[in-house]
Amino acid sequence: MERDEYLAIVKTRMPEKRYIHTIGVMETACALAKRYDEDITSAETAAILHDIAKYADEDLMRQIVKENGLDARLLSWGSEILHGPVGAWIAEHEFNIRNEDILNAIRFHTTGRAGMSKLEKIIYIADMIEPNRNFPGVEALREAAKENLDEAMEQCISHSMLFLVQTKQPIFPVSVECFNDVVS
Amino acid sequence: MERDEYLAIVKTRMPEKRYIHTIGVMETACALAKRYDEDITSAETAAILHDIAKYADEDLMRQIVKENGLDARLLSWGSEILHGPVGAWIAEHEFNIRNEDILNAIRFHTTGRAGMSKLEKIIYIADMIEPNRNFPGVEALREAAKENLDEAMEQCISHSMLFLVQTKQPIFPVSVECFNDVVS
Repeated sequence: MERDEYLAIVKTRMPEKRYIHTIGVMETACALAKRYDEDITSAETAAILHDIAKYADEDLMRQIVKENGLDARLLSWGSEILHGPVGAWIAEHEFNIRNEDILNAIRFHTTGRAGMSKLEKIIYIADMIEPNRNFPGVEALREAAKENLDEAMEQCISHSMLFLVQTKQPIFPVSVECFNDVVS
Repeated sequence: MERDEYLAIVKTRMPEKRYIHTIGVMETACALAKRYDEDITSAETAAILHDIAKYADEDLMRQIVKENGLDARLLSWGSEILHGPVGAWIAEHEFNIRNEDILNAIRFHTTGRAGMSKLEKIIYIADMIEPNRNFPGVEALREAAKENLDEAMEQCISHSMLFLVQTKQPIFPVSVECFNDVVS
């Protein structure tokens, strides 16, 4: 399947605003892949598909988790945490993606994880800093991403953790493993 | 064993500054126990012994963890995380404390945990707000502790999490379980 075919399908699965975000992530991820010498086509594919499950029904997502032996901890979490791992499952089974690095980049794009690959970091960071994102501190994250991928990753996961604590939202344990990994 | 006997032994196990802190925790915990209708003697005993392992040798603490089947995750953490669970073990085996609520209050006084008892919250909070503590925001925590124990617990664990993220220190997963529990 080619880039334009992916995009055409993705466009039917989400509101226009989320599709515009997806294009932003794609462009940002490709720029980061070029900057940090990662495969650009892999970055493009992962970025296009990263939110493929964002608007899937939550019960359907839980069913996919159960029936396919995904991380059982996911079952007590909502769409925000489910859509990454379920998106990776859809990318594999509907879009026939076989590249495990691309699948992991989709799987962990919201939570991060300990031991992320370069591609995983690129998609995680691109998702946070793409041009349509607008939150206090995003500009500093964009600047960090131009300089050093690991430093940008540390700043991005720290920013997410601070946001969750300040807004009193529970934190998925895999994100804490990611944070502990990057600060250790 | 009586209060003064505990205090005399505890005094020999720590620098004077830490002993003064222990007295502060004891007085604060007793005040909170009175305010929130908890057993005052239990609060006093837990407070006096809460830092009993603070200055124990780290290798010895790891040995106690290994030989007695304590949470194996502790083995990759330092004194700051080890001293609570190891302190509970010492309280049980050296001081003959048999009250599981007192032992848990010592065990989880640094990390918190999901599903804390009233006594556990009292010791956790007293440890953070006793009069010798002096950090930005401590006064707000003291005020919260006068009003509502659960609200104070939420503010205290959130404060700890923010501090760890901002200072780039890894977070023990049990603290995240505590945070997720109190904000859910």
